Amino acid sequence: MDKIEHIGIAVKNLEDSNALFAKLLGVTHYKVEEVESEGVKTSFFKSGPNKIELLEATKPESPIAKFIEKKGEGIHHIAFAVEDIESEIIRLKDEGFIVLNEKPKKGADNKLVAFLHPKGTNGVLVELCQEIKEA
Amino acid sequence: MDKIEHIGIAVKNLEDSNALFAKLLGVTHYKVEEVESEGVKTSFFKSGPNKIELLEATKPESPIAKFIEKKGEGIHHIAFAVEDIESEIIRLKDEGFIVLNEKPKKGADNKLVAFLHPKGTNGVLVELCQEIKEA
Repeated sequence: MDKIEHIGIAVKNLEDSNALFAKLLGVTHYKVEEVESEGVKTSFFKSGPNKIELLEATKPESPIAKFIEKKGEGIHHIAFAVEDIESEIIRLKDEGFIVLNEKPKKGADNKLVAFLHPKGTNGVLVELCQEIKEA
Repeated sequence: MDKIEHIGIAVKNLEDSNALFAKLLGVTHYKVEEVESEGVKTSFFKSGPNKIELLEATKPESPIAKFIEKKGEGIHHIAFAVEDIESEIIRLKDEGFIVLNEKPKKGADNKLVAFLHPKGTNGVLVELCQEIKEA
């Protein structure tokens, strides 16, 4: 776990929250990206070596829609940067963590990602993410 | 906002969670510190330029005890490093954020801290923190 790559925050309205977080962080978002498979539209802000990812649901069955329904808007997950996601998945499984994606999947912002079940991590949804390098 | 200084995670049992997060992060915590005024015992882990702070309540009226009662264990706040906390407080108040500590207070890990009300930040409890430099 090299650093906190980003914090994911579930929001109801991406446009409104983009304006709010620009005021908070003192910078505007540098990209908006839709991940259709996950039913989310995301935006990213830089905070030094870290990022803030805002997530708006694009359909009612999106995990983000369900999260907001249950808990309201707020911090949804914490993502750690890893060098080699496949070996981290094996290491964490061996340590007893519940890995939700045994095979990493394509996430937003050019990343391979895998999630750990919050049941095994004190209620924290943990994402591992590895940058996809061009061949 | 220079970077994510740390993520605060509310836990029921600090000792158990110290062991769990050592497995997760691959490093052990580097300090344990009690902040009596806040009714918490904390531990800190490094993750590259960032930190993870675990928080256990030391009394029933602690904000962490109330948080766990209401929401369960999980991510409690996100702290951003700032150079000059007093000017950030003024800037954020002017932007319309609800600052909970107009005068910064002493927090854990040698920091001056102030919080923003989650009502004004999409449900996210935001901490500003400035390192206390020795004169």
